[in-house]
Amino acid sequence: MIRVTLIGSGNVAQHLIQAFSQTTAVELVQVFSRQPETVAHLVSAHQIISDFNKLQKVDLIIIAVIDDAISEVSNQIPFENQLVVHTSGSVAMEALNAKNRRGVFYPLQTFSKAKAINFKVVPICLETENDGDYNTLETVAKAISNVIYRINSEQRKALHVAAVFVSNFVNHLYQIGETICTENQLDFAILKPLIQETADKILTLSPAEAQTGPAKRQDSQTINTHLAFLTDDHQKEIYKLLTKSIIDNGKKL
Amino acid sequence: MIRVTLIGSGNVAQHLIQAFSQTTAVELVQVFSRQPETVAHLVSAHQIISDFNKLQKVDLIIIAVIDDAISEVSNQIPFENQLVVHTSGSVAMEALNAKNRRGVFYPLQTFSKAKAINFKVVPICLETENDGDYNTLETVAKAISNVIYRINSEQRKALHVAAVFVSNFVNHLYQIGETICTENQLDFAILKPLIQETADKILTLSPAEAQTGPAKRQDSQTINTHLAFLTDDHQKEIYKLLTKSIIDNGKKL
Repeated sequence: MIRVTLIGSGNVAQHLIQAFSQTTAVELVQVFSRQPETVAHLVSAHQIISDFNKLQKVDLIIIAVIDDAISEVSNQIPFENQLVVHTSGSVAMEALNAKNRRGVFYPLQTFSKAKAINFKVVPICLETENDGDYNTLETVAKAISNVIYRINSEQRKALHVAAVFVSNFVNHLYQIGETICTENQLDFAILKPLIQETADKILTLSPAEAQTGPAKRQDSQTINTHLAFLTDDHQKEIYKLLTKSIIDNGKKL
Repeated sequence: MIRVTLIGSGNVAQHLIQAFSQTTAVELVQVFSRQPETVAHLVSAHQIISDFNKLQKVDLIIIAVIDDAISEVSNQIPFENQLVVHTSGSVAMEALNAKNRRGVFYPLQTFSKAKAINFKVVPICLETENDGDYNTLETVAKAISNVIYRINSEQRKALHVAAVFVSNFVNHLYQIGETICTENQLDFAILKPLIQETADKILTLSPAEAQTGPAKRQDSQTINTHLAFLTDDHQKEIYKLLTKSIIDNGKKL
């Protein structure tokens, strides 16, 4: 059994606590949180600490805090040669204090506190300075997920940018769709089967094969009708830019 | 049993033929196609015609052709007072020749020939000039789908614009994600659970509640790192514009 301590109490930390509670391969020793009440429903009171000097030596310390705080938190850990990892897609492994053995444990998923996650299908991207530590991380990752990747910091940065496109930006397009529906007395639910099918299609087709719509067909009449319909400046600009990108992309193929 | 004839042999026509073949409420009488070979695997040879003068009188003629051809095809139908509908999201009902009773039968879904569709969950948006014809369309629609909406032409235009955002544009963002992965020796499959979860989240959360990421957090350090990483002009512009739109949208809430 691998002894793990978690620093943080946000979305990622809470989902990790829940995932660790469902495996016998990991013993969650402590959770460090400056707001103990945010994790009080997930772990016993005696496991929650908010003083770095109370940290116990464990096999692995996972820092799951906002990106800007990772480096400073790693400086506060009162150990040397301890395996310490962070969970961020966009922070280099080297941001962690070099007095400890460093690594990254990046679960590639969009976490909201209000929605449960099936961690078994969440890809976990691992990086370490040495192979022994990789084995430790891999054991912990395999205890909670079936999908493990070894990737370096440069690839992780690329992956995080790609994730912003396929998740954060996609969700924003959903929001625009909802706004257009609401403004026209239409139930947003009418779009949900389309949203599901669009996501499902790329499980079997490449995005290039799956592309449909007026931009793909270079149907300038429909495109102009849509642009005339849109009155919100952001929506109009986004429509123009994505249409141009789809058309130019089609020319490259 | 309602007797239906279909004009067209593209994606929508083929999926409709398959859906009608699975119900006893609809008898598919004829399929008009200028390329009979494209539907030869779906209907008997004697049902396929390519001469408008061979059209039989039926309860309903569905025109499922590209938008630009709808009006001209409707002129070719050698009947009067026949119920004739088109399947387009972006063409007004009035584009159909006024010598016949007009309507719209718009299945709101992204159809690819290479992927089967569960028509039962496809919303079908109906519009007619009179209530009797609405009942006919509704009977046909209910025979193949569980989700029927009555919407007018103006709402349908709004819905089609919204569909472009949540489907066509979303798929293009998937393609950008795939490109970034490929350029960095990453398997695009690593992003697929994230894509699925992003689509699943809005079944239970509003898009505003589901929004995550650096733009939402106004994390300018990560945003600048991502912009410095991107070298493709389209990708960079899309990143900037959608980030700005998410930030401005957050200020409105």
